[in-house]
Amino acid sequence: MVHLEKVEYKPIPVRDLLVEMKDISELMIDLAYSAALFHSPELAEEVLELEEHIDKLAYILGMNAMLAARDAEDAEALVGVSVVAAAANKISDAAADIAAIVLQEIGIHPIVREAFQKVEERLIRVAVKPGSILTGQRLEELELAARIGVDIIAIRRGKRWILNPDDEETAREKDVLVARGAPMGVEEFKRLADGTVQKLED
Amino acid sequence: MVHLEKVEYKPIPVRDLLVEMKDISELMIDLAYSAALFHSPELAEEVLELEEHIDKLAYILGMNAMLAARDAEDAEALVGVSVVAAAANKISDAAADIAAIVLQEIGIHPIVREAFQKVEERLIRVAVKPGSILTGQRLEELELAARIGVDIIAIRRGKRWILNPDDEETAREKDVLVARGAPMGVEEFKRLADGTVQKLED
Repeated sequence: MVHLEKVEYKPIPVRDLLVEMKDISELMIDLAYSAALFHSPELAEEVLELEEHIDKLAYILGMNAMLAARDAEDAEALVGVSVVAAAANKISDAAADIAAIVLQEIGIHPIVREAFQKVEERLIRVAVKPGSILTGQRLEELELAARIGVDIIAIRRGKRWILNPDDEETAREKDVLVARGAPMGVEEFKRLADGTVQKLED
Repeated sequence: MVHLEKVEYKPIPVRDLLVEMKDISELMIDLAYSAALFHSPELAEEVLELEEHIDKLAYILGMNAMLAARDAEDAEALVGVSVVAAAANKISDAAADIAAIVLQEIGIHPIVREAFQKVEERLIRVAVKPGSILTGQRLEELELAARIGVDIIAIRRGKRWILNPDDEETAREKDVLVARGAPMGVEEFKRLADGTVQKLED
């Protein structure tokens, strides 16, 4: 039932791949714990999407590392890279384990969840609906951090991920946004993304 | 050659243990990647210390979860907890793998390291030396964030860990401090901890 796509070789510098794997594995931990603690199947699904993505990056990194090693010295220097990549993969597997308990409706004991929920910040994942005022504006213009205390930490556009998007980035219709902020802020953010609220307070 | 200590049952609420395991596993990821990228054996050693600590917490959590389950319903509700605990453990193992390459002097290819070092913030681990002006002052009074842009994210006091210490906490001689900040700030912080600098700039 699993759709397996062939991973093709792409010439991408090993360092870029490793930076991306590191960033994604850190994001996954964040998302997975949040998914479990706020019982959010949406966040859990993003974790599984990212898991697939990181697997693919691991293959591509493996191929590039092999092609980069021309002698024993190179090989020695590249072993460290493959250990870090393997660790990033292990981390992403652990995050996927956590996500799975949410999707399998096992969940976390409510008493435990309560303890976690005292944490002030929370994560949210929302899809940008047609007509949302978030579309077509640069993040810089939206000033979400200043206005509602929310930071967009990742954007998924189809199969592509943009981690820690910069100010020049523009949110588009159908983008999936992962954001972090205080509970009230993230609720407001959700309404902005789905179009229920059409105006950003100053 | 490994010294194995008996882990004894302690009645600690499952939720407290899980919160601690979550926080530690996140800190370990941070420390491990930093250890590899800045080639810091000090940070790598802290990762291994934490790994031991998280193993111990996992055992204690296991015992407490078993005692907490009195019927099938409890057991079902607690399975989620043990999955998260196992994942935190897996994450900590991955972090330890990364730390090991630093301590085994395998290291990371310099070109890769360079890419990571563009990251603005970095982590540091310092021991508080006798006579350091950091001793005996509440973190609140030190105002490190405002003055030098450094945050203390963890304190190790012997075998005990204080994660995300609050403002009331006091740094003591021999404490090991883990802090995060811009490169210049963390260098200054190091000098304050080892007593080379005896005055905090305003």
